[in-house]
Amino acid sequence: MPKLKLSYFDMDGGRGIVARLAFSMGGIEFEDHRITFAQWPDAKAGLPFEAVPVLEIDGQAVAQSNGINRYAGKLAGLYPEDPLQAAFCDEAMDAVEDALVGLSASFRMTDDQERKAAREAYAEGPLSHYLRCLAARLQARGGEWFADGRLTIADLKVFSWVRHIRSGTLDYIPEDIVDRLAPELVAHCDRVAAIEGVKAYYQSRQ
Amino acid sequence: MPKLKLSYFDMDGGRGIVARLAFSMGGIEFEDHRITFAQWPDAKAGLPFEAVPVLEIDGQAVAQSNGINRYAGKLAGLYPEDPLQAAFCDEAMDAVEDALVGLSASFRMTDDQERKAAREAYAEGPLSHYLRCLAARLQARGGEWFADGRLTIADLKVFSWVRHIRSGTLDYIPEDIVDRLAPELVAHCDRVAAIEGVKAYYQSRQ
Repeated sequence: MPKLKLSYFDMDGGRGIVARLAFSMGGIEFEDHRITFAQWPDAKAGLPFEAVPVLEIDGQAVAQSNGINRYAGKLAGLYPEDPLQAAFCDEAMDAVEDALVGLSASFRMTDDQERKAAREAYAEGPLSHYLRCLAARLQARGGEWFADGRLTIADLKVFSWVRHIRSGTLDYIPEDIVDRLAPELVAHCDRVAAIEGVKAYYQSRQ
Repeated sequence: MPKLKLSYFDMDGGRGIVARLAFSMGGIEFEDHRITFAQWPDAKAGLPFEAVPVLEIDGQAVAQSNGINRYAGKLAGLYPEDPLQAAFCDEAMDAVEDALVGLSASFRMTDDQERKAAREAYAEGPLSHYLRCLAARLQARGGEWFADGRLTIADLKVFSWVRHIRSGTLDYIPEDIVDRLAPELVAHCDRVAAIEGVKAYYQSRQ
């Protein structure tokens, strides 16, 4: 097994959680390098795109979260071998990234009214669109898992995103928006949260 | 071999070109379904995320361009089997998508001065950043190819993006920006353009 070091912020969400979950669930040893926001300005200078997550594999840095998730998923047995099922898995992961695009600018807004307007437009527009579309894609795959008829990294990605929205910690994004527009994704979120390895991870972080 | 139908706009660029190139270079038969801008409003309603490209594989629709590229790359022998090399390949493809994020809003701007300001800020900011970072990543892999020491879909993706920027067809994006900031990517673009299968594809489209 290669020597692995995952660098990401010191939070159990965002773009680092899927690889952390996959490594943990697969029993794969890795260095969980958590960067504080205070360390960030210095830390980012040496990173491939000045961004996290970054996974070092035997000392070689790899960037871009979904590629890292895919690598972790292969090691942990959570990525489909069949090309069609892999494409379904990739589709759901990239759709979540697309859904996040419209949100990121609002984190940099310092004016509260500006952020409120941006977040409300985002919730009404792209967020609603991606929630509805992803729920339909889940239904098209049978309603339980996004690919391969079993848990894959696509499920972990959608789960962690839906969990974040439903946590109510995103100002001006209604925390019940998933429940209202995509109840299939709420059931899916509960299904993933109930998996032993997922429960064990979050318990270990308390 | 599955029955393949690729739906994308009627242009030899954008997010559809990598899969078209890969299928063509791999000698893989596919229906090249080209949607005109006039057909688009009606066409998009039936698509998984109301977006293209979409690849139908034995009648099952798969969305998201990099997943489609990966699937095409597997069929055409242009995607690494080794997980680390696959992660390098994925990294470059997703970096190009990240680089495109800041450009897309400007296509919807109807005010020319607004578009000029947005494009100039984009060229100065994210575009310069990603060009420099991708050139450094290419150098870190040996300077010739982005992964696996050979042509992969990552090279096709970066090539088609750089080719587009250098074509001078993007208003207010300096067509010499790649030459000035990332000459390694110009040499890479020329290297990919000189490949027999790539040349044959573009000749077939004239």
